[in-house]
Amino acid sequence: MKIIVDGMGGDKGPEEVVKGCIEAVNELDVNIIIVGKKDIIEGELIKYKFSKDTIDIIDASEVISNDEEPTIAIRRKKDSSMVVGLRALIAGKGDGFVSAGSTGALLAGGLFIVKRIKGIERAALTTVYPTTNGMSLLLDAGANIDCKPKYLEQFATMGSIYSERVLGVKDPKVGLANIGTEEGKGNALTKESYNLIKDLDINFIGNVEARDLPKGVADVIVCDGFVGNIILKLTEGMAISIFSLLKDEFTKSLKSKIGALMLKPQLKSFKGKLDYREYGGAPLLGVKQPVFKAHGSSDALAIKNAIKQLKSFIEVDVINTIENYINDNE
Amino acid sequence: MKIIVDGMGGDKGPEEVVKGCIEAVNELDVNIIIVGKKDIIEGELIKYKFSKDTIDIIDASEVISNDEEPTIAIRRKKDSSMVVGLRALIAGKGDGFVSAGSTGALLAGGLFIVKRIKGIERAALTTVYPTTNGMSLLLDAGANIDCKPKYLEQFATMGSIYSERVLGVKDPKVGLANIGTEEGKGNALTKESYNLIKDLDINFIGNVEARDLPKGVADVIVCDGFVGNIILKLTEGMAISIFSLLKDEFTKSLKSKIGALMLKPQLKSFKGKLDYREYGGAPLLGVKQPVFKAHGSSDALAIKNAIKQLKSFIEVDVINTIENYINDNE
Repeated sequence: MKIIVDGMGGDKGPEEVVKGCIEAVNELDVNIIIVGKKDIIEGELIKYKFSKDTIDIIDASEVISNDEEPTIAIRRKKDSSMVVGLRALIAGKGDGFVSAGSTGALLAGGLFIVKRIKGIERAALTTVYPTTNGMSLLLDAGANIDCKPKYLEQFATMGSIYSERVLGVKDPKVGLANIGTEEGKGNALTKESYNLIKDLDINFIGNVEARDLPKGVADVIVCDGFVGNIILKLTEGMAISIFSLLKDEFTKSLKSKIGALMLKPQLKSFKGKLDYREYGGAPLLGVKQPVFKAHGSSDALAIKNAIKQLKSFIEVDVINTIENYINDNE
Repeated sequence: MKIIVDGMGGDKGPEEVVKGCIEAVNELDVNIIIVGKKDIIEGELIKYKFSKDTIDIIDASEVISNDEEPTIAIRRKKDSSMVVGLRALIAGKGDGFVSAGSTGALLAGGLFIVKRIKGIERAALTTVYPTTNGMSLLLDAGANIDCKPKYLEQFATMGSIYSERVLGVKDPKVGLANIGTEEGKGNALTKESYNLIKDLDINFIGNVEARDLPKGVADVIVCDGFVGNIILKLTEGMAISIFSLLKDEFTKSLKSKIGALMLKPQLKSFKGKLDYREYGGAPLLGVKQPVFKAHGSSDALAIKNAIKQLKSFIEVDVINTIENYINDNE
């Protein structure tokens, strides 16, 4: 199996991406093509020991940054690592593509270059949502801001398949993010979506309230991209704010400083539980070939984990499963 | 000034409500009418020292519980403390009404009994949103699930007036809860609402992201009731989950237990900052007379604080200010 990796994506740059690729070829049974500025990638590769035939480079002279308007960047920067990587994917040079670069650009590239599976109305951006007892999968994470019930129905199907096949969750609990648990609660979109999702052949547990998301009430959280963005960013903001409040409190007196020092390993372990990087990447679901997004601040470990999950995504053939399910049920 | 209080509302029952009323008449310059089962209210009042002419009772034989369908309960339970209290309000027996009972029933009662201000399209449920540097006001907190841009525009106006007049925030920063800070971001509703709100004569700071809400980026957070509910419940759920994680971590070893013990006052102070009860009540904005909701788990302190805020709401004449603003700008 050959994985194409965007060598230039991510806040930490090629250094961590290349290191993650090295760890992947040494630990997982994969070959890798790194796309990016050849001299930079080679300069990184030279630092490590690895079997030379496991990693190839495709040269790409441009880089798409997070600040660029995604659609324009994908159209104009034809020699960017992301566009060249996605084109290599559809040309059959590799089995899947992963990038830690601009989420918007990857989404645009997925739609314009890789294109949607037949029958899928919208591709969904998925993300890992860390909970107190592990993780949930959330979709849509911000790709589709105004949704129709049909989109949410397909997100539920795709999320369930991915959770079961790749994340190994048995009979994953799929919940619709809503303002009350009872059937009939919600806005026009969630009410209609509920009626569509409940007829699917998945383990739909009904509406789930935002209050219960952090404790992992659902394996798959279905929502439109607006609500998904609110959930993800508020979760992040709360974690940051609570830590900053705790820090303020803990430095108030000598006694509290000593107390905080004694708790340091626990506070660190706690922070780790909220850390997105532990969980690797997440797919763009609904496009014709495997496209993965690794977190923007991915270090080598996160890159390796993303490659590992992408490998599993390819092996269990999620895309054909989605395509068959959609075609059988339309 | 005479405040009508729902003596039977709230999870803690008449005991705390009556105690809060006693504290109010002893500390604030108000008279109170407590509505509820006369024998129960009298049984509570007898425990305290207070000037007898400051508190009256109106007997009401029924109670609306949180489990009842709000609209049906308001229509059928004509002798409930809430309905009798609201009827006393419109009959001019008091200057404002406060209840810690069912939010839905209070909203329904506000709309059917007290009715909307002329020109106001929807009344908004407001709530206090605790932040790391104090508190914001959030509206709508769940009364209006599917909104039109015009509603959000009016919420912005009403929230700004309340924040400035009653909460004493100078030139309150009004933010529209959205998925990006730039103009043009968002779903159909927030994009159109932005265009209406930006022309208002208020301190509109534009879109605010969910990530920044816990640190108090805006004094007034404007959103539809669906998003408001998601924000409030996720904030609550995150606080609960993080505390439970911390507790798990802190009891892992003897050393961490001692550390946690040394931090006890700080952890308590920290919890207090996230405590809704410190902030009293919040109004139903857009109805013809002052109607306040105190938190369901209000203790005597919270009831007293709600009465205090309601008093201020009446004194500065928020309702006429809203009515004049709306009529001048339509």
